Amino acid sequence: MELKSYIRDVKDFPKEGICFKDISPLLGNPKAFNSCIDQLIEVYADKQIDKIGAFDARGFLFGSVMAYRMNKPFFPIRKKGKLPYETVEQSYGLEYGKDTVEMHTDAVAKGERVLLVDDLLATGGTMKAGAQLVEQLEGVVAGCLAVIELTDLPGRERLERYETRSLIQYGGN
Amino acid sequence: MELKSYIRDVKDFPKEGICFKDISPLLGNPKAFNSCIDQLIEVYADKQIDKIGAFDARGFLFGSVMAYRMNKPFFPIRKKGKLPYETVEQSYGLEYGKDTVEMHTDAVAKGERVLLVDDLLATGGTMKAGAQLVEQLEGVVAGCLAVIELTDLPGRERLERYETRSLIQYGGN
Repeated sequence: MELKSYIRDVKDFPKEGICFKDISPLLGNPKAFNSCIDQLIEVYADKQIDKIGAFDARGFLFGSVMAYRMNKPFFPIRKKGKLPYETVEQSYGLEYGKDTVEMHTDAVAKGERVLLVDDLLATGGTMKAGAQLVEQLEGVVAGCLAVIELTDLPGRERLERYETRSLIQYGGN
Repeated sequence: MELKSYIRDVKDFPKEGICFKDISPLLGNPKAFNSCIDQLIEVYADKQIDKIGAFDARGFLFGSVMAYRMNKPFFPIRKKGKLPYETVEQSYGLEYGKDTVEMHTDAVAKGERVLLVDDLLATGGTMKAGAQLVEQLEGVVAGCLAVIELTDLPGRERLERYETRSLIQYGGN
């Protein structure tokens, strides 16, 4: 199933000149969402995956269903200050300033192979910070996976050390 | 399966004197998470449900899997400013100040029966605001559902107009 027709363009969000890719129509259509999950699982079907980690908040929508379907443990990666237990943290640069994400220290054990899932791969900052968190805990990043990728941005370059895949690409502007 | 043993107490989070109920062990155990989803679906199994709405961010983890399993459309309810398309909004009082949640205007159509899902029912402010959003769009709140309920707080009172259920209760302090 072609998923692109379930992604809605919203102009000038979050700021003027940006065309936001809205996944609401995909979430609102069970057939499309079901197919999306099947396709996400298919991408790394040949890899050994021990755990699924997903990013707050839209990444949760896909990562949790994948973990459920694949019968794998799930853990969240969140902005600093949201996770209650002991954490590791990783900062990354934004256009102006920086941001920090965290994982619980017991989310990943040494040698465990983790699949990282998010809705969007843009500059790759969040995904790379997530991968570094897994490595801080001596886990292995088995793959980075996004539903949507903006190919005009350097996300994939920034993630060159990791195998990175996406279902839907936008670019060439 | 008894789910309580997969909820971890974290003391003094988010502030001193609060004992936070951490769902990470539940998410990290596929058998427990699977059973949790089964139990959540069972609660309103006798009701007609047209759509599932869940709250940013931890509510997404349960609501999306329920929607997937039940083959129902899903929509997100988020803090103000996060949703890209045209929205309705609803404010609610906090201990100090107020907060505002939003839904897309096309998330629910007149007469549609919505199940609202969150990880935690505490004061009930967010859940009630979500119910009011559904009603702003002339939808019907078929039920309010939380994984965990803090029964010493007035969440259920605040939601007395709605059928409200939870899987795990903590209280009597």
